[in-house]
Amino acid sequence: MKVDLLIENGHVLTMEGDGVGFIEHGAIAIKGNRIVAVGHREEVGRNCRAERVIDATNKLIMPGLIDAHIHTGFAIFRGVAQDMSDWMQKGIWPFQKHLKPEESKAGSMVNIIEGIKAGTTTFCDYDGRMDLLVQNYKKIGARARIAEMVNEIPDDIGDLPVGELYEFNPSIGEEKLKRNLDLYEEHHDTENGRISVILGPHGPDMMSLELLKEIQNYGEKLDTKLHMHVAQGDREILQMEKRYGQRSIAFLEQHGFLNDRLLAVHLTEATDAETVQVAKSGASMIYCAGSIGIIDGLVPPVHSFLQAGGVACLGSDQAPGNNCNNMFNEMKFAAILNKVKLKDPRIFNATQSLRMATIEAAKVMGIEHEVGSLRRGKKADVILLDLGDPSFFPVLTKPIRNIVPNLVYSTRGHEVETVIIDGNVVMENREILTIDEKVALAKAQNAAENVSKRAAFDILNSDSDILAMVRDGLL
Amino acid sequence: MKVDLLIENGHVLTMEGDGVGFIEHGAIAIKGNRIVAVGHREEVGRNCRAERVIDATNKLIMPGLIDAHIHTGFAIFRGVAQDMSDWMQKGIWPFQKHLKPEESKAGSMVNIIEGIKAGTTTFCDYDGRMDLLVQNYKKIGARARIAEMVNEIPDDIGDLPVGELYEFNPSIGEEKLKRNLDLYEEHHDTENGRISVILGPHGPDMMSLELLKEIQNYGEKLDTKLHMHVAQGDREILQMEKRYGQRSIAFLEQHGFLNDRLLAVHLTEATDAETVQVAKSGASMIYCAGSIGIIDGLVPPVHSFLQAGGVACLGSDQAPGNNCNNMFNEMKFAAILNKVKLKDPRIFNATQSLRMATIEAAKVMGIEHEVGSLRRGKKADVILLDLGDPSFFPVLTKPIRNIVPNLVYSTRGHEVETVIIDGNVVMENREILTIDEKVALAKAQNAAENVSKRAAFDILNSDSDILAMVRDGLL
Repeated sequence: MKVDLLIENGHVLTMEGDGVGFIEHGAIAIKGNRIVAVGHREEVGRNCRAERVIDATNKLIMPGLIDAHIHTGFAIFRGVAQDMSDWMQKGIWPFQKHLKPEESKAGSMVNIIEGIKAGTTTFCDYDGRMDLLVQNYKKIGARARIAEMVNEIPDDIGDLPVGELYEFNPSIGEEKLKRNLDLYEEHHDTENGRISVILGPHGPDMMSLELLKEIQNYGEKLDTKLHMHVAQGDREILQMEKRYGQRSIAFLEQHGFLNDRLLAVHLTEATDAETVQVAKSGASMIYCAGSIGIIDGLVPPVHSFLQAGGVACLGSDQAPGNNCNNMFNEMKFAAILNKVKLKDPRIFNATQSLRMATIEAAKVMGIEHEVGSLRRGKKADVILLDLGDPSFFPVLTKPIRNIVPNLVYSTRGHEVETVIIDGNVVMENREILTIDEKVALAKAQNAAENVSKRAAFDILNSDSDILAMVRDGLL
Repeated sequence: MKVDLLIENGHVLTMEGDGVGFIEHGAIAIKGNRIVAVGHREEVGRNCRAERVIDATNKLIMPGLIDAHIHTGFAIFRGVAQDMSDWMQKGIWPFQKHLKPEESKAGSMVNIIEGIKAGTTTFCDYDGRMDLLVQNYKKIGARARIAEMVNEIPDDIGDLPVGELYEFNPSIGEEKLKRNLDLYEEHHDTENGRISVILGPHGPDMMSLELLKEIQNYGEKLDTKLHMHVAQGDREILQMEKRYGQRSIAFLEQHGFLNDRLLAVHLTEATDAETVQVAKSGASMIYCAGSIGIIDGLVPPVHSFLQAGGVACLGSDQAPGNNCNNMFNEMKFAAILNKVKLKDPRIFNATQSLRMATIEAAKVMGIEHEVGSLRRGKKADVILLDLGDPSFFPVLTKPIRNIVPNLVYSTRGHEVETVIIDGNVVMENREILTIDEKVALAKAQNAAENVSKRAAFDILNSDSDILAMVRDGLL
């Protein structure tokens, strides 16, 4: 068989089956944007004549990682809202109200670069003005499953005192929903299927029931998932109780949202009973370990969700909370935070974390027939890591096979050398081939400085913890 | 003034004062192994004629990091003992009993390389056969404050059923103590002061009271610190209660160990009252966030220790638990694990984490007059980081100065480009200049494979959780 690319001699994690699908000295063959063979090197090599061969000796070959929840439009705010209370209201909104769409787009590109350099090949981006952000994915060549974040909240919401009920603006809601639908119309299943669009209601507290119902109807009509924050913080629960006298999950149950269409993000404030209820409904959970740990000091009930039979995966959320958009960071945090929450080192093992950044994430996002594992017929999203990096040392295959523990607990992302998305080599020798990284960074830095300048008056008149630290010379 | 090296135009964190000592567009001048000037670039540049100038535009200049607790001799076991119960007994000891000193030394070099590449300049190494490991530090040019780990425990201790009282072997104890004293005699204050030696009792449960007392006497005679595991796990507490009918801290108090000579490592099992007691005694605490989180699923009481007025710092511990020896990993884990433990995002802010890997660590180790901050007269241990890496994006100095939050929460260590130790450039453009990294790695890989082969029979006949995972195809 003639193939375009043969990658051989590396150890392989296919992520097929119940474990990690380890193949010692394996190979993978790619034709167009599809995987046409995976297996032992002799077996694969025997049947292929390849246009190009990559020798992966002392490399690890595995599926590209899936970041199931990321707001790349927020990259521009990284590090401005740390170690503080009322993160969203006092940290983010004073900046966000001054953010121009083009600036958000410039910052987004840095997040995408950061993710690709750390092995992320699929970005489930969920943000405003996705019509602009999608251009970044098209340009850089990443896979994206995107949603416009729909709400009825004005940009100056941060001026409202903490704890007061938001007033919804239906015209904002209609405009944003239209953007999500236009996005679907224009970009869904484009770029050879690399770009796909789902619906993105911001949260049950962020819009009227009428608009939620409208989105639900479109979800059924288009037969697509709803990517939504659910029980994401005490701020949300407070809003729901004030407005409806109901907590988020009871409200969503009553209105028919708890089913396999729902991707419930965070569930930070879900009680045990609510967690089990969501898991058993068929809805999936997206767990953002680093973000919720740093912003809220909390560990969402992902372990209970999995114990109840739910399907869950990992997301990096946004730069100003986490603060990195790196799935290696997420895998390690997911494991350690759950071990600590349950005071048991056996909980949330390395294999589970790795699956939740690959095949389980593909299941959550409804794309497991295309990506998330290395299997003949799937799309060729493949990454190569340098097993010669000290963080992988030593590489042992017997009696204990230690590659996966070291991948999850020791590596940091810079071990990723090569990134192939949809059959194209997007990064090689740690260098992005499709865009000029330095130019993108300079543009985004300029944009960030401009937002900061415009936001300065509001920031300097806020009473945030981080501003106090800057004033006290602690930063 | 004539100087050897002038580093100019970078942003500087001096770590002097109560915060981080930020200087916008600063410079540092080095002569021999000492810092001779730090300040704004014009001020420093005006007074210096430099042999060599490094332009640090868009770089961060800061003190080298201090890893206050590391067992580099364990590097060779990275990833073989994960996600399991009885980590030491079932995970480590079956390997350790087959480890030869030269193999341990080969692995140690990889840990040191890993640390330097992530900005660690001072290693407080605490291990067996330090007479061999110290040669690595001399060769690579790192600063080390080392101790021989002294106990009376035979290498085949792992054959003892979990929970049984260890039998001490006084001749082992005398031999190990002699090694610590010989190490002091031969290596203390050598290499221009770069190598220093302290005492290293393994733990109150690991030797007889007689030997502990003997070490205590030597500590007084040499006027040096005692680097010791204290209340490091339920295994230790069980041994102490069985042997003495006392918990570790009451025992140490009774026998006069609770004073400023003691570096108490872990304190994992210390109660609130015990934690306050240790803090108020003047003893310091070394907190190993990643290691204890992964091995035990616990967060030691470091926040209470600090609240009680104690001085504490961070350590990476050993590769087979943590699993990386990277202080960036430690700073982020320390912050997030304590936020989560106390359910408060304001706890353990970025500045605190950073201080605990620099100036506070120097205080704990009794070397704050020499390292831990950038100040005229101190030793020149300096690192340069690339502020142009996406993980630092954006770099803002007003109204919110976000460099420190992004340093602690976003960067991962590979942003470190240049490492200067004792005035010498040990790493430049991410390449170690003093040894051949590839040769060191290959030698250590070979050693690890040999230990694994010899240990295979014992491992395959053990009942460890990780072996079961390998057998089930989960790894």
